[in-house]
Amino acid sequence: MTAPETLEGWFALHDLRRLDRRAWSEAPPELRHKAIAEATDLLRACEEDAEGGWSLAYAIVGHKADLLVVHLRPGVDELLALERAFDGSLLGPYLDKPYSYLSVIELSRHGLPEGTAENVAASPYVKARLFPELPELSEYVCFYPMNKKREGADNWYSLTSGERADLMRDHGRTGRRYAGKVSQIITGSMGLDDWEWGVTLFADDPLQFKKLIYEMRFDEVSARYAEFGPFFVGQRLSPSDVGSWLDG
Amino acid sequence: MTAPETLEGWFALHDLRRLDRRAWSEAPPELRHKAIAEATDLLRACEEDAEGGWSLAYAIVGHKADLLVVHLRPGVDELLALERAFDGSLLGPYLDKPYSYLSVIELSRHGLPEGTAENVAASPYVKARLFPELPELSEYVCFYPMNKKREGADNWYSLTSGERADLMRDHGRTGRRYAGKVSQIITGSMGLDDWEWGVTLFADDPLQFKKLIYEMRFDEVSARYAEFGPFFVGQRLSPSDVGSWLDG
Amino acid sequence: MTAPETLEGWFALHDLRRLDRRAWSEAPPELRHKAIAEATDLLRACEEDAEGGWSLAYAIVGHKADLLVVHLRPGVDELLALERAFDGSLLGPYLDKPYSYLSVIELSRHGLPEGTAENVAASPYVKARLFPELPELSEYVCFYPMNKKREGADNWYSLTSGERADLMRDHGRTGRRYAGKVSQIITGSMGLDDWEWGVTLFADDPLQFKKLIYEMRFDEVSARYAEFGPFFVGQRLSPSDVGSWLDG
Amino acid sequence: MTAPETLEGWFALHDLRRLDRRAWSEAPPELRHKAIAEATDLLRACEEDAEGGWSLAYAIVGHKADLLVVHLRPGVDELLALERAFDGSLLGPYLDKPYSYLSVIELSRHGLPEGTAENVAASPYVKARLFPELPELSEYVCFYPMNKKREGADNWYSLTSGERADLMRDHGRTGRRYAGKVSQIITGSMGLDDWEWGVTLFADDPLQFKKLIYEMRFDEVSARYAEFGPFFVGQRLSPSDVGSWLDG
Amino acid sequence: MTAPETLEGWFALHDLRRLDRRAWSEAPPELRHKAIAEATDLLRACEEDAEGGWSLAYAIVGHKADLLVVHLRPGVDELLALERAFDGSLLGPYLDKPYSYLSVIELSRHGLPEGTAENVAASPYVKARLFPELPELSEYVCFYPMNKKREGADNWYSLTSGERADLMRDHGRTGRRYAGKVSQIITGSMGLDDWEWGVTLFADDPLQFKKLIYEMRFDEVSARYAEFGPFFVGQRLSPSDVGSWLDG
Repeated sequence: MTAPETLEGWFALHDLRRLDRRAWSEAPPELRHKAIAEATDLLRACEEDAEGGWSLAYAIVGHKADLLVVHLRPGVDELLALERAFDGSLLGPYLDKPYSYLSVIELSRHGLPEGTAENVAASPYVKARLFPELPELSEYVCFYPMNKKREGADNWYSLTSGERADLMRDHGRTGRRYAGKVSQIITGSMGLDDWEWGVTLFADDPLQFKKLIYEMRFDEVSARYAEFGPFFVGQRLSPSDVGSWLDG
Repeated sequence: MTAPETLEGWFALHDLRRLDRRAWSEAPPELRHKAIAEATDLLRACEEDAEGGWSLAYAIVGHKADLLVVHLRPGVDELLALERAFDGSLLGPYLDKPYSYLSVIELSRHGLPEGTAENVAASPYVKARLFPELPELSEYVCFYPMNKKREGADNWYSLTSGERADLMRDHGRTGRRYAGKVSQIITGSMGLDDWEWGVTLFADDPLQFKKLIYEMRFDEVSARYAEFGPFFVGQRLSPSDVGSWLDG
Repeated sequence: MTAPETLEGWFALHDLRRLDRRAWSEAPPELRHKAIAEATDLLRACEEDAEGGWSLAYAIVGHKADLLVVHLRPGVDELLALERAFDGSLLGPYLDKPYSYLSVIELSRHGLPEGTAENVAASPYVKARLFPELPELSEYVCFYPMNKKREGADNWYSLTSGERADLMRDHGRTGRRYAGKVSQIITGSMGLDDWEWGVTLFADDPLQFKKLIYEMRFDEVSARYAEFGPFFVGQRLSPSDVGSWLDG
Repeated sequence: MTAPETLEGWFALHDLRRLDRRAWSEAPPELRHKAIAEATDLLRACEEDAEGGWSLAYAIVGHKADLLVVHLRPGVDELLALERAFDGSLLGPYLDKPYSYLSVIELSRHGLPEGTAENVAASPYVKARLFPELPELSEYVCFYPMNKKREGADNWYSLTSGERADLMRDHGRTGRRYAGKVSQIITGSMGLDDWEWGVTLFADDPLQFKKLIYEMRFDEVSARYAEFGPFFVGQRLSPSDVGSWLDG
Repeated sequence: MTAPETLEGWFALHDLRRLDRRAWSEAPPELRHKAIAEATDLLRACEEDAEGGWSLAYAIVGHKADLLVVHLRPGVDELLALERAFDGSLLGPYLDKPYSYLSVIELSRHGLPEGTAENVAASPYVKARLFPELPELSEYVCFYPMNKKREGADNWYSLTSGERADLMRDHGRTGRRYAGKVSQIITGSMGLDDWEWGVTLFADDPLQFKKLIYEMRFDEVSARYAEFGPFFVGQRLSPSDVGSWLDG
């Protein structure tokens, strides 16, 4: 099988952290005060980056993590530097890393609108997909990694490119019904992390995550070929709320 | 396949905690005293919420957790605030989180009684299912997440809606034989957590959990299509018993 | 498929603990002394319970646990109280919980001897199975949980009740060849814990565990339908040996 | 299927330990000194046991463990006593247990040389296999547990005894080509631990482990029926090197 | 099936470490200073080894590890000594081991160029593959272990050697399209570690890892027969940067 051609944009690091509450509760008040101020500045500085890319922080529901920072940047070196900046901060030693995900924004050439494929570099559509602006509806996030199955008769990679295109077209149709409610960033992660793709959804109403994924589960491409990793759901945490979030 | 239409009610957070007994045993008596009083108040305050929803606490049997608080609320933001309230309490640093589950109460439209489907909003039946009252028989709880299989010939999502409806009808019949012994809350969690559904059972006699699940295992829908996550079983812990439970 | 009818007896908690040796080695000698005396009393008190049921303690081989206490009691509330009694003891904070298992003694009606089925309540055979006496040959224990498979063509729950009965009869025949060498307690755990059954074997010669399980593996019911969880093997620890075991 | 008849010899405990380097680095020099002397004596004492059996220690490569002690003894009680002797030593609290394996040396009757089967007890061949001497080429060790598959059409336990014997004969032929390079001890662990068999290989050149396992992977018995657990590879650690190994 | 003949070169240890940031942040400044100097010297000393082999260090992205040191050496004893040198250093107690991988550079005889097979020992091609020089494009690394499947109809080891050779030839063709962008070291690990092979890729542009693995996923040998372990991606860390990396 020939691999479909893809375009790649910014690299993405989903950096998940868990606060060690006992150690934090025993830290000296002055250190806590300084650590909060520093973390606030750090988050603010990386939210919109003059060099390209942006970051958004979320408070994660449940035991899987306390914090998710989604970083989008032109290079892996910049993502590593951001991770190290948090590690090396005063708060760093109180933040364990329960999970993370390295991937790169991916766009399939054969999903491009008519006329785009000839001159990809000049296409505003392509640019907007590979280097997306900050999402408008971003109060809640849902992130999960996934694979396409390679099990016996259910092997995505053994389908013809036509079969794959048909299945993906149906799937895209389901997704488009959620336009204006859910926005998404699809990242590829083969050779970068343990699953094949990352899916990051943004919405102002978290019920839409459930509605969208539920509906898509009945598309043949999900029903028969999708394997899902862990799901992380969180609510927007602005830099100025870091203090109350940590000491809340 | 077309996804069946669903109705959603309150969001649910199953918040499981494990007490770090060594750290707790070394905490100063005064802090322990204050922490117990605060936790008692916190649990009492969230048990029945004026804004809608309720919470119930259980002491969990075995190594998986010590405590389960089932929270039902209108929004994810309120569940996150409840989780943070426990995290930020004096007891919070002594409570690890071995598991949690985020989901939303779900009702399938085609399972509705005759005449309901036309005017769902006005149906007392629907309202009672989506925004349930505190269960009457609630001395014991059993919670587990589950999937419907998508493996080779056993793929739930490739069945026709008629086939799925038939299988669910048989399953419902088994469940109804336990009316008056076991009450249940079914929550959907696609896009919210790692499994597709959560099942929360309440009973005054925990043997009924075993009887019900055993009988259902022989229904084709379970025998052939169900995948089960971890099971958590616990006994009701009223706010006023928190102190003796922690120091017992 | 119709579920086979079952009878249930005592509930069982397999409570596995691991000693935190570094913390224990650093505990003050006086505390250790008191903790040992208290744990000895606790174990002794729960070994034979006037209210019904009994408990037996074992030193477990290898990394999975240090201690297993098998508790049999009429209710889940009593098992939870026993677990909490150990948690709340002086030794409790030094004992982590690497595993546990909640189940209930189960007897299948169609495996009953001729004439028993009509008057179950009066049958001494049934009573001896549901509320067993302390095993005679109990120097060693072997505990493991298990499932019956539900994979493709190997689905236990899709067999007819006649097929299941035939397979179980052969299996029982293998087991009976070990009468006088190995005694067993079968507990059901659907709706109570993560596997479907627990198997607890007792013997004075641990080689018989290997012989029995090895032979049974070739029975079709195991070969084709059994899935096994972790195996725990231990040697009897009498209450009076707790001190030397902890400080050994 | 009838289970093949087996003979059993010594029990085996593979006791894997990981040094907590931070705690150890913070232990008082005098305690470290005493702990090293005690551990050296302990290892020396159990290497060759007057009561039957022997022990060998290895430094394990990589993150899975730091130390493996292979103990062979007539009874499980002796293995448990050896484990407890290390636990209770001064070094014990600094040694976590990442893994362990309980099994018993196993010999299949139908693999015995001509004429042996009639008088097994008197056979020097059988005795040498069930109660082996210390291996001559023992500078490196490779230990792994394994199962025979029971999946769909690939079910070892559903083969006839003739089919199994043929497959094992081919496999044995591959193994014999490594005589003089690799020696092995096969232990059975059904009813004793989580896998069905343990394989312990000894060699002076660790490349031979790779060569042997690689070649065997293409035998039908491995290709189609083998499932492998974790592999542990280590280099011989003599008692007198314990000090430099711990402080190296 | 006959196993294909292989040639082996240097052994490889992929040694992954995670810094315990809280303990490190609490270490006395003088110890930190000394530990950094010692670690810098240690890394520098092992980078190019006069006795044969070399080592390269990488800062790993995400939660899986902080540091990867790839060591290539003639013997397992030398790899174990290198691991112990880091363990026993001042920094050692602050570095946990989340993963590691032991393998040996492997070359298949039937993949050799025309004319090489007759006189392997004298072939510069073979020597360069078994004992590779430091990679030129080495700013980024991608390491992952993998298996060939043995599941039902998808069993690599049941193919004929001709079928395997054809599939590998196609795969090699895909790989060669990345010459000058990605260099690779293939190591075999049967009998040495938990997967069958290790793949270590080096590149100056990490996007090429994604491009290469993505394209290869559609080759039948990957699509149908490959199983992948965890992926580790990192950026070159030169010995002189250890200090700023640790305190960054």
